[in-house]
Amino acid sequence: MIRARLLLASDRVSRGEREDRTAAGVREVLAEAGVELERVVALPDECEVLAAGMREASLSVQLVLTSGGTGIGPRDVTPEATRLVIDREVPGLGEAMRATSLAAVPTAALSRAIAGTCGRALVVNLPGSPGGARECLQAVLPALLHGVSLLAGAVADCAEELGAGGAAPGPGSRPGGASG
Amino acid sequence: MIRARLLLASDRVSRGEREDRTAAGVREVLAEAGVELERVVALPDECEVLAAGMREASLSVQLVLTSGGTGIGPRDVTPEATRLVIDREVPGLGEAMRATSLAAVPTAALSRAIAGTCGRALVVNLPGSPGGARECLQAVLPALLHGVSLLAGAVADCAEELGAGGAAPGPGSRPGGASG
Amino acid sequence: MIRARLLLASDRVSRGEREDRTAAGVREVLAEAGVELERVVALPDECEVLAAGMREASLSVQLVLTSGGTGIGPRDVTPEATRLVIDREVPGLGEAMRATSLAAVPTAALSRAIAGTCGRALVVNLPGSPGGARECLQAVLPALLHGVSLLAGAVADCAEELGAGGAAPGPGSRPGGASG
Repeated sequence: MIRARLLLASDRVSRGEREDRTAAGVREVLAEAGVELERVVALPDECEVLAAGMREASLSVQLVLTSGGTGIGPRDVTPEATRLVIDREVPGLGEAMRATSLAAVPTAALSRAIAGTCGRALVVNLPGSPGGARECLQAVLPALLHGVSLLAGAVADCAEELGAGGAAPGPGSRPGGASG
Repeated sequence: MIRARLLLASDRVSRGEREDRTAAGVREVLAEAGVELERVVALPDECEVLAAGMREASLSVQLVLTSGGTGIGPRDVTPEATRLVIDREVPGLGEAMRATSLAAVPTAALSRAIAGTCGRALVVNLPGSPGGARECLQAVLPALLHGVSLLAGAVADCAEELGAGGAAPGPGSRPGGASG
Repeated sequence: MIRARLLLASDRVSRGEREDRTAAGVREVLAEAGVELERVVALPDECEVLAAGMREASLSVQLVLTSGGTGIGPRDVTPEATRLVIDREVPGLGEAMRATSLAAVPTAALSRAIAGTCGRALVVNLPGSPGGARECLQAVLPALLHGVSLLAGAVADCAEELGAGGAAPGPGSRPGGASG
């Protein structure tokens, strides 16, 4: 079963000054697709704190979701934090989320949300608003599930290679890659 | 009232060899939204010259628009100049403009237009053609107005913080951010 | 006549372990637009090998197409190889291809395809699947033909300049640019 963690990027929620209203919708959308939301963590809008939260999550779950902090306010640093942890950016996920939101909300063009791979996990920035987070997650969830299975498959292949030849696995070392 | 400046990136217009036909439409679209186009400046397609024009404009107006120089010709350097001055790129604005133009003109996919924040201003690359500039500006103007108000709000918040505690404001220093 | 080369990024095809099924459709779409596919080369999913293939192709043809290697598998390195050789990225081409594919296949959001100029050539990443490559090429081909003619025109202008003044041509040196 695929497991996800949600990091709420919000100074106020992390200080207990505001109730989160986003996690419930995210949990519901994930549950409908058979994905377990194993934990919800509220973090302040600090780049290093958010990056550390993403890195830690990527070791436990296959899908690391964030919500909030993707706008152009001075405390919006979620994309910057994400860039610190991802190996490879996947630009189509941000594009697809914005295209979805733009149909309803013209200001969605201001979202700087990005996504990428972090080891065997996918990291994806969702909007902070309950409706936006739910809508964007629904728009890209089929792609996320496929991506997670690709990353997991890669790991399985690496394990096979290790078993067969004992070589250290890594990018560039697998003779029969997924793209071949 | 929001004020905008338009920088025409065009060797020929800046040398007086060609009449500009783009500013009038931009002025009209802005006026309909209550935005004053305070100045139109024609500059050569030189990266440093354009960047200096954007920086100067960002100190006077909230919305810095450019037109032209976003293609793949050897003199098209407006995106490069923009990248020199922006603090944070806002990829959704270029995406939204291209998606709008693509519906009418397949070659719009060649536009390398970008946008981003420069201090308290938004910088946005528009196409050089009168029709393209007008159409793209209309497509993103609601987002631009919202963005400008977010950037202005941040400034107001910083001022409050200064008044309350005397600390130097800046990214990372505001306890109750817009994203919180 | 515009000439194109197709580089198949595929470990298995390059080792002769799998038959390519993508080139035929690409050839057909190009032929309908009057573009000759002068060569199809199968290369392993190795970043430096792919980059060298792109560089060499850019000296012979105006349109360098790749297929495959744009996903998130560990051997998918085509975008990284492309980034090594392009002078300027043209983000709208990847955006347009993904928007086209997304309408049919939600997982297309995982494609990391990019495109850009490499000297006088355009380099464009297509998907690896026969249907995806065909569909994406069709979506952007009008823009590619226009782009190629712009890059060729630039060269013609440089030649004129050389004839007129003898100065070495290059970015920044042409007084009357395409954007002016």
